[in-house]
Amino acid sequence: MFERILVPVDGSQGALKALKLAVEMQKTTDAELLILTVYRHHSLREKSMSMVRASDPSNMDDVLREHSKEIAEHAKQYALEHESPRARAFVKAGQPARTIVKFAKDKDADLIVLGSRGLGDLEGYLLGSVSHKVTSLADCPVMVV
Amino acid sequence: MFERILVPVDGSQGALKALKLAVEMQKTTDAELLILTVYRHHSLREKSMSMVRASDPSNMDDVLREHSKEIAEHAKQYALEHESPRARAFVKAGQPARTIVKFAKDKDADLIVLGSRGLGDLEGYLLGSVSHKVTSLADCPVMVV
Repeated sequence: MFERILVPVDGSQGALKALKLAVEMQKTTDAELLILTVYRHHSLREKSMSMVRASDPSNMDDVLREHSKEIAEHAKQYALEHESPRARAFVKAGQPARTIVKFAKDKDADLIVLGSRGLGDLEGYLLGSVSHKVTSLADCPVMVV
Repeated sequence: MFERILVPVDGSQGALKALKLAVEMQKTTDAELLILTVYRHHSLREKSMSMVRASDPSNMDDVLREHSKEIAEHAKQYALEHESPRARAFVKAGQPARTIVKFAKDKDADLIVLGSRGLGDLEGYLLGSVSHKVTSLADCPVMVV
């Protein structure tokens, strides 16, 4: 039924619920499980916070990337521990909804599972609107958990 | 994984895609498949078309209900023909998104599968916004197809 299930995670409780269901779906269908964490480039973040200027933007990007890697790897670990062996973790920079939809297309994902609400703070996520955008833009079915 | 899958149908191509996937999900999980067609009460329709007055409102409701029954039964037939025997068809009157969400709660559905866009004309559906509303209001996962 599904061959490649994409689950975007951001460390939120909503994303954890989505991950749990995606792992169940993966085991039922024997699909690949693609775990993706998206972070906003410092340049993008700066646009919306033009009053705040970091002293070292490149370092800020590094910190965000490392933090995102940890979130994605942690999710992958969860999958492996729950007998879902076909999990791979990815990290991308960009606007969350568009990056998720583009990644799904690039990887030929045939299902996206995501939380109805994620982090609305540090990561600039507001996954409520991310999930709406993803369901509108994606070519494949989107399961909002 | 799922015990009761709800699929709202309105006769649109989007709803048919949702129905096809819901049937696949039903067969994989051996869940019950609840098929629901929602029509708007004439009183509700009249609100948004206050310039138009039908000569016989009760008759208009009957026509809408019969039409909706046909759509739901047709969808059930599709399920039966595709080896998905646990299908039941329902018809309800009301505002689409709220009626779908309430029905899901009443029936303890643990998954709603619906088209990203449905009929935006006669039935007053505009399922684009219906799917957004349902994903926001539902207590269970919603798969937008």
